[in-house]
Amino acid sequence: MKAREGASPPLLDKERGIKGVRLVNNLNSFRLIQTCPDSKARVGELLTPHGEVPTPVFLPVASLGAIKTLTPEEVKDVGIAMVLANTYHLYLRPGINVIEKIGGLHRFMAWDRAILTDSGGYQVFSLARLRQVSDEGVIFRSHIDGSQHHITPELIIQFQETLGADIIMALDECPAHDDSLEKVNRAMERTHRWAERCRKAQKRRDQALYAIVQGGIFPQLRHQSAEYLTSLDFPGYAIGGLSLGEPKRVTLAMIEETVALLPEDKPRYLMGVGSPEDIIEAVARGCDMFDSALPTRVARNGALFTWQGRYNIRNAAYSQMEQPIVSGCDCYTCRNFSVGYLHHLFGCEELLAYRLATIHNLRFISSLMAKLRGAIGSGTFPHFKDNLLANYQPTDEETRLSQKQRWLKSRFKPVVD
Amino acid sequence: MKAREGASPPLLDKERGIKGVRLVNNLNSFRLIQTCPDSKARVGELLTPHGEVPTPVFLPVASLGAIKTLTPEEVKDVGIAMVLANTYHLYLRPGINVIEKIGGLHRFMAWDRAILTDSGGYQVFSLARLRQVSDEGVIFRSHIDGSQHHITPELIIQFQETLGADIIMALDECPAHDDSLEKVNRAMERTHRWAERCRKAQKRRDQALYAIVQGGIFPQLRHQSAEYLTSLDFPGYAIGGLSLGEPKRVTLAMIEETVALLPEDKPRYLMGVGSPEDIIEAVARGCDMFDSALPTRVARNGALFTWQGRYNIRNAAYSQMEQPIVSGCDCYTCRNFSVGYLHHLFGCEELLAYRLATIHNLRFISSLMAKLRGAIGSGTFPHFKDNLLANYQPTDEETRLSQKQRWLKSRFKPVVD
Repeated sequence: MKAREGASPPLLDKERGIKGVRLVNNLNSFRLIQTCPDSKARVGELLTPHGEVPTPVFLPVASLGAIKTLTPEEVKDVGIAMVLANTYHLYLRPGINVIEKIGGLHRFMAWDRAILTDSGGYQVFSLARLRQVSDEGVIFRSHIDGSQHHITPELIIQFQETLGADIIMALDECPAHDDSLEKVNRAMERTHRWAERCRKAQKRRDQALYAIVQGGIFPQLRHQSAEYLTSLDFPGYAIGGLSLGEPKRVTLAMIEETVALLPEDKPRYLMGVGSPEDIIEAVARGCDMFDSALPTRVARNGALFTWQGRYNIRNAAYSQMEQPIVSGCDCYTCRNFSVGYLHHLFGCEELLAYRLATIHNLRFISSLMAKLRGAIGSGTFPHFKDNLLANYQPTDEETRLSQKQRWLKSRFKPVVD
Repeated sequence: MKAREGASPPLLDKERGIKGVRLVNNLNSFRLIQTCPDSKARVGELLTPHGEVPTPVFLPVASLGAIKTLTPEEVKDVGIAMVLANTYHLYLRPGINVIEKIGGLHRFMAWDRAILTDSGGYQVFSLARLRQVSDEGVIFRSHIDGSQHHITPELIIQFQETLGADIIMALDECPAHDDSLEKVNRAMERTHRWAERCRKAQKRRDQALYAIVQGGIFPQLRHQSAEYLTSLDFPGYAIGGLSLGEPKRVTLAMIEETVALLPEDKPRYLMGVGSPEDIIEAVARGCDMFDSALPTRVARNGALFTWQGRYNIRNAAYSQMEQPIVSGCDCYTCRNFSVGYLHHLFGCEELLAYRLATIHNLRFISSLMAKLRGAIGSGTFPHFKDNLLANYQPTDEETRLSQKQRWLKSRFKPVVD
């Protein structure tokens, strides 16, 4: 901060707390280590300029350059190797140029492990207003101040190259889950053309650009999309446009249809999935990477993960409980605080409550991912999965869908096409 | 948290992360180490069952059992040796019995250093509604749910013994700064009678009970109060009823009038003072202990301490600044983040913003206290003070008073006496 008097303070050490990007050829690649003989589950490793990321991996969401409530140190402490940041959000605030000036996204958020930036496609189609989509790109209005912006696949790549994440995403058009086949088909074809243009626009060679398979809930479109995009040979493939309000059996069916056509030796990234039960099912179907705001968002609402299911700490029954949230959990929260204390903090809306809950939920998910990798590695995945799901009571389908739809409704506006 | 199935999880280890209270005779005492030859400033040490506390010391406020936004670990990391918790707030939420059940206040909030609990006097007279004050005690309505409560000096001691802080406070009646001499006199005399009753009610011998000098802005009352209370020989004396909206020169004059009549060998605790400029002036006048929500409250509003004064990080001028808040500051925030990043987090209302700002402000105040102790110890206090105040631009008197009065107005309701 500029002092009113005296000499200017020195700049922050650019390397303080963060490693620089090591420019090594083929640094950004995927290594498949082992596959489960009884399912499509697999363990692997992403090699990135900011460290190795064992898969299956869960990426918490740092939309605006911070995992809500946590410092980078805490995010590391819970065992997170990679986070997702949103190009759309960072483009609007603080602006790509500000992050460039401060030394890129890793430096800006003081995170020295891997980062994946999404392309903003999902946000433009779910959050922004007054969209006009053409082959050229999208004109939209900011959800914050209504200002008008025009993005193209080329610009989105330029933004992501400036941000400097390890993995970047092609711009996609993300239809609603109940759109017609015709509309979904049109969005898919545009997504394909945009993926090619993103590919051509890429200048940096130290970032891995993933394509996004679309096709909604139509198996034939999913096939078409997976076949077309894999023919272009991207270093990784995302499955987009799922978990947007469709029934869970449909989500799982679409994952199967898509994965069947994706290459073995490339990572598969299922976008927007983050509940323990959904992650397990998707891992069984061959997915390697996941991102979702769910574990952190529900934490701030007081919903805490246990191996028996999700519990809400606000429940009066927890007011005098001496135990930690999960017996034996090694997170900072469970090592130090009782359920009664957390209940009290939530009741008073003390900001510390949201942190302690977030730490626990992220540690839970990161432990779950480690357990999944261990089970696949030791050949016990089917047993582990059955056992876990037998004890874990998921939020029931009806509640889940109505919650999801309520949440989406508050964000999702009709696409002006 | 109770699992739906399976065996009950074990209780949290009572000693995990916290030291038990060591019951040693004369553990709670004060040692005067050195006095400044040119002022009344002095360095000393409080010996408590939870460690030694070097004075002058600043106590941040953990009203509800948490320093807002911070974990106990972070509070330690910034160099805090003692915190203040509010009996009034904890009595209303979660209730004294809940904290007793979970193992006392240290255990409840997982803080293994010293704690001081206030008596609730100030809160009852500033925050609660429909007060009826008699010699017996106070009947008031909760500011949260309107429920009616009756407290007495004896009950307040019982509550504080159950909470188990290292230093506890006698119940006092705290008049408004513009009350008449007659009214202030009546409150003072009642405060004296209550102090005696608190003394008699005390059962635990490992807690130090401090009395509170009242007397408003009337020198003769301040003399009377200090003389009377010191005649009862408490282990420490607080100066209450100041910094409530009166001009700063009056505050300082009242401190001088009071300290002149307090014993050399007992700690002097100036309640409710927390700005760097006020702390320095009060240290020069012989005060040893301070508490205030100011450093943490203004941090959450974006006002950050520097050696040149307080700056508001929300100012647009800071949006692209690469520097840390204070060059050379060793706090986690300054070591890792740019002013531009903090400005961005505040702009987006990311909860991490409030934490990072709180860490910086508390580290600033705790460094200030260490510098003050060092200067007094090395005989350079007057020079240090002049130098610091020459560079430090305090919030101007007019702004300060109007801010304070606006804040008090939102809390202070007329006393029903």
